[in-house]
Amino acid sequence: MRMAAEEMAVFWVGTALFGIATLVFALLGRLGRSNKIFANSNFLVSFITTVSYTVMAMGIAITVAPNGQPIYWTRWLFYIASCGILTYEISVIVRKPSEEVFEVPFLTGMTMFCGFLASFLVGVERWWFFVFSSAAYVSLLYVLFCSRSRSAADSGRIMWFVSVTWSLFPLVWVLAPTGFNVFTTFVESILYLALDILTKIAFGLYAILRQTEENVTG
Amino acid sequence: MRMAAEEMAVFWVGTALFGIATLVFALLGRLGRSNKIFANSNFLVSFITTVSYTVMAMGIAITVAPNGQPIYWTRWLFYIASCGILTYEISVIVRKPSEEVFEVPFLTGMTMFCGFLASFLVGVERWWFFVFSSAAYVSLLYVLFCSRSRSAADSGRIMWFVSVTWSLFPLVWVLAPTGFNVFTTFVESILYLALDILTKIAFGLYAILRQTEENVTG
Amino acid sequence: MRMAAEEMAVFWVGTALFGIATLVFALLGRLGRSNKIFANSNFLVSFITTVSYTVMAMGIAITVAPNGQPIYWTRWLFYIASCGILTYEISVIVRKPSEEVFEVPFLTGMTMFCGFLASFLVGVERWWFFVFSSAAYVSLLYVLFCSRSRSAADSGRIMWFVSVTWSLFPLVWVLAPTGFNVFTTFVESILYLALDILTKIAFGLYAILRQTEENVTG
Repeated sequence: MRMAAEEMAVFWVGTALFGIATLVFALLGRLGRSNKIFANSNFLVSFITTVSYTVMAMGIAITVAPNGQPIYWTRWLFYIASCGILTYEISVIVRKPSEEVFEVPFLTGMTMFCGFLASFLVGVERWWFFVFSSAAYVSLLYVLFCSRSRSAADSGRIMWFVSVTWSLFPLVWVLAPTGFNVFTTFVESILYLALDILTKIAFGLYAILRQTEENVTG
Repeated sequence: MRMAAEEMAVFWVGTALFGIATLVFALLGRLGRSNKIFANSNFLVSFITTVSYTVMAMGIAITVAPNGQPIYWTRWLFYIASCGILTYEISVIVRKPSEEVFEVPFLTGMTMFCGFLASFLVGVERWWFFVFSSAAYVSLLYVLFCSRSRSAADSGRIMWFVSVTWSLFPLVWVLAPTGFNVFTTFVESILYLALDILTKIAFGLYAILRQTEENVTG
Repeated sequence: MRMAAEEMAVFWVGTALFGIATLVFALLGRLGRSNKIFANSNFLVSFITTVSYTVMAMGIAITVAPNGQPIYWTRWLFYIASCGILTYEISVIVRKPSEEVFEVPFLTGMTMFCGFLASFLVGVERWWFFVFSSAAYVSLLYVLFCSRSRSAADSGRIMWFVSVTWSLFPLVWVLAPTGFNVFTTFVESILYLALDILTKIAFGLYAILRQTEENVTG
């Protein structure tokens, strides 16, 4: 396991950034009124992600790819909780009828759990779980896309943002040592951190601002 | 671990059958309107079961009974999710008042988690968890039976079907290498597959047909 | 691992006491009408705790502190489920607005999961997770305290009881071999058992009696 120290630095940066984001979302939830649900769920998402980065920074539970690169598979188990909250938040924003909403956290859980299995295993059989994870992810996008309400003007825009940024995660997975080994675990950890900031912190701030505005104009 | 290859063939058949069932339920959910909730939850149940059979087919995580027979304990952990959805579906069909419904997934989870512990352990202490699992299961049946609504004409019939077919799982457990070792893990895997098809695919199709009919006549 | 037999006796006492409590709460749920939700959730809490004590009594999964004392970390994973139900029950008693209630089980889960990591790890890095667990716990108390309804006359009293008794758990953790090693795992197991009886059985009986009275007078 060469270069473990390099990834660890990236993970500690993740801990610091998401730690700060946790405090910011906690404050926003106490200050505002209208945006409480979004601030509170983003607070939880950032908190869970902070713990996830700390676990990776300590290298507590990893497997090793055939070429010796370490694989930090715990990330995907924490995503079950954090992305489950996020996709629920997204389904509220795009105004999905509530009796169908129960599918969304289950499909998110399947996506992330199969992603965990695909990362934990290092043999060729891992691709089975990559396919299952992708199938769950495509179903999730289908459910969110098809049943979004036309009444929320920007629901299409939000769904495109979510679809594009979330789809970069499996792309990184395929190119990293978990997949075809095009780049190292160090590069992988930087790319995942950038995507985590985009889909969890930036998206969270947008969701809160949007809601505050809607309450002012609406 | 003799005969592992034989069970693995059974598990791959399970993957194939539940993979097909996943696609069929996904299609039924998109075609119909009235039966959407049932089709969607059966889609999830079949999807989870497909992943469960694949994990067993790869022999990823097993313990070995004193007589050398392998024990595939991961099955019971996947049942927490799949049977949790199924018992929720059943409680909707028999029209349980919603404020009590929260007990049902917890009792299902206890049944399956203690079933996992009973299967994972190979010493005599495993029977403690068999007793706990059975107690949770009896409580679950009691809750579903007692509070079913008389207004749903076939709720009694459904509850009898569920009680009989689900009770065959612990019977197989007791006779398999997990219990008294009357038959082999190979026979066990065939019996569980038959029960899975009955309680998950056949029951799922019945629930959807029933709902479609109710909407036509009602 | 000296003295393992002593703790095991304590754990078996825990199994017996919570086994009896499970039966009592099951009976109370069948007898009464008005207090059904509380009796049922306390039944589940006691049932989960019974299984937890049995797992510890068998010493199935433990780590060993640097001074040779065993650490029974499974306790904290079972608390995710049992205390999640308890904090939900508390939030119903203090009449929290329901759209915010979803935070409560997640913060309880974070408290207990980070408590598991802090107990599972034996190096100095475990204190990170003690801090995360404490942060989640303080947030949980804040959420329950701030949004309690004035209309429930005793909600303040209940919250003080909960705050004081629940806060003794991390105190025991800090003084036990998991923390600064002031007393042994045997003493720890007795203290946790006393706290479990106070926060789960005694509190549960109070919640049911209170509800029954409220229905008589109200």
